[in-house]
Amino acid sequence: MIPTPYLLFLGDAPDQLAAKVAQGIRDWRPQNAVGQLRMEGCKASVGMPDMTLEEARAAGAKTLVIGVANRGGVISQAWKSVLLEAMDLGFDIASGLHNLLREEADLVAKAEATGVHLHDVRVPSESYPIANGLPRTGKRCLAVGTDCSVGKMYTGLAMDLEMKNRGLKSSFRPTGQTGILITGNGVPLDAVVADFMAGAVEWLTPDQDPDHWDHIEGQGSLFHISFSGVTMALIHGGAPDALVLAHEPTRAHLRGLPDRAVPSLEALRDLVLPIARIANPDVRIIGVSVNTSALSEEEAVRYLAEVESRMGLPAVDPFRQGAARLVDALIAS
Amino acid sequence: MIPTPYLLFLGDAPDQLAAKVAQGIRDWRPQNAVGQLRMEGCKASVGMPDMTLEEARAAGAKTLVIGVANRGGVISQAWKSVLLEAMDLGFDIASGLHNLLREEADLVAKAEATGVHLHDVRVPSESYPIANGLPRTGKRCLAVGTDCSVGKMYTGLAMDLEMKNRGLKSSFRPTGQTGILITGNGVPLDAVVADFMAGAVEWLTPDQDPDHWDHIEGQGSLFHISFSGVTMALIHGGAPDALVLAHEPTRAHLRGLPDRAVPSLEALRDLVLPIARIANPDVRIIGVSVNTSALSEEEAVRYLAEVESRMGLPAVDPFRQGAARLVDALIAS
Repeated sequence: MIPTPYLLFLGDAPDQLAAKVAQGIRDWRPQNAVGQLRMEGCKASVGMPDMTLEEARAAGAKTLVIGVANRGGVISQAWKSVLLEAMDLGFDIASGLHNLLREEADLVAKAEATGVHLHDVRVPSESYPIANGLPRTGKRCLAVGTDCSVGKMYTGLAMDLEMKNRGLKSSFRPTGQTGILITGNGVPLDAVVADFMAGAVEWLTPDQDPDHWDHIEGQGSLFHISFSGVTMALIHGGAPDALVLAHEPTRAHLRGLPDRAVPSLEALRDLVLPIARIANPDVRIIGVSVNTSALSEEEAVRYLAEVESRMGLPAVDPFRQGAARLVDALIAS
Repeated sequence: MIPTPYLLFLGDAPDQLAAKVAQGIRDWRPQNAVGQLRMEGCKASVGMPDMTLEEARAAGAKTLVIGVANRGGVISQAWKSVLLEAMDLGFDIASGLHNLLREEADLVAKAEATGVHLHDVRVPSESYPIANGLPRTGKRCLAVGTDCSVGKMYTGLAMDLEMKNRGLKSSFRPTGQTGILITGNGVPLDAVVADFMAGAVEWLTPDQDPDHWDHIEGQGSLFHISFSGVTMALIHGGAPDALVLAHEPTRAHLRGLPDRAVPSLEALRDLVLPIARIANPDVRIIGVSVNTSALSEEEAVRYLAEVESRMGLPAVDPFRQGAARLVDALIAS
């Protein structure tokens, strides 16, 4: 377990999306963080008080969480002086980056010298099996996106929260570093060895009561060529009973791929259904989750109504509006 | 480089398919092996002389190649005494299993004591990038299967050989341990960390002359839930210009998944095209490769004619008949 509360390190994040780890903690477990630390040139904020390491320590923070993701997951040299100073002040460091804290000799030496701990939440903690494709009891829901970073994790967290608030049986099943930092368990799917991806998802979503829903955190997109294999393993290992289509309507192109257009929700529906039916012939799409954070309230309401009419499915922004209508549709499915 | 010639270790292979690593070496580089070693209960043979370790050593063998794959890739305790004895006799050991030779303390100790080498060809030797999806010059061909182990590697090797025999520009690009053992290079794709799968395939198939074809070794199947994520990354990282559909007509169910039926070639065609067009809108299916090893000559000819008429594509068994018609179709595409 990672000691709380955290100080959220945003580093030199080039844009707001790069800070999605910190934002996720801020949105779903705000009680676990005392503030944020931003370096010069940082273009992100999660709206918490800016603090120095000393101020955060005085406010009780125990762990500096690297709340920013670089493309490729590298620990930049620019961050090193902050991390080393934090360790001198007694902070543990927690990270979900590919480039592990434990692979950096200076950080390891400092941890040994100061007695603090390095937490690499991306490292798989289990030896996962190869997927066996056997049916499991209980129900599973997965959000699939037209692109990466369109709100799939938020959708799952919001649906889980709504079900818990109604007294229904529900779990959120993280498959990425943010979710793992939020809940304290899960599978760091993009760090799992290829052959065991689907098996790791089966392991994460075992037999449950017949009326229990696992909300599996989505990853990547079937249309995003860099990460579509991870999405595929998630769909076939999770064998979801219900799918939610996730979309961000203002994206000019696929994230990180400037020459590739974001597909329509219809294209996603038509591609994902035959793929998902391979694992679970009874799978249904129960709704659309739209990340409207770049739209005004009025624009969002208009856009959601248009999507709802076009797709014939409930269309909501679960972060802005809550996930009640998605849960209604899930239960009715 | 792994010293040749080899002795092919078939262990206690439960069936012929489990010995596909040894069979691949036997079929494509027979000059690299002096014989096979089978333990009691072995149900496979690659048709080479059965030899003891001593006999193979006397015949000049330098490396014992583990030519058998267990489900999960484990090095069984039953094999250990053979491997240790081989090392005492001066054999190197080569393996493509997930469970690495270098992770077994007794093998490592014996290698140190005897001065022989342990070759784990499954271990990625590069730090692969995240896929960028940028177009590359040259052409790429990929075989995709209705199931795992239906002859995708053979198809690529046979097409590559046929093109080389015609003086055309061609490379075979291995993505699995057998191909790597055969050619001495490649990407062990099923051992690559999930986020870097598609990038590893881009790395494996770089810019080439416009009239050069890379024949990328296929893996898994979009319909095989245990490994479909690997297949997806191969399609999106490889961005093939040409696809060959691969099938084994006598399979009772998907390999290792007794409750799941093998899909039809039509179902594969209809699923793979929209997926492959995401990476390369101009992709075409140029033919069908059928593994007819379980059919008589007459049955095979009849079956291939039926498939050819049904699918409107050349249908051949490249191992039985050569890949000339597939290469004709590729060049005409």
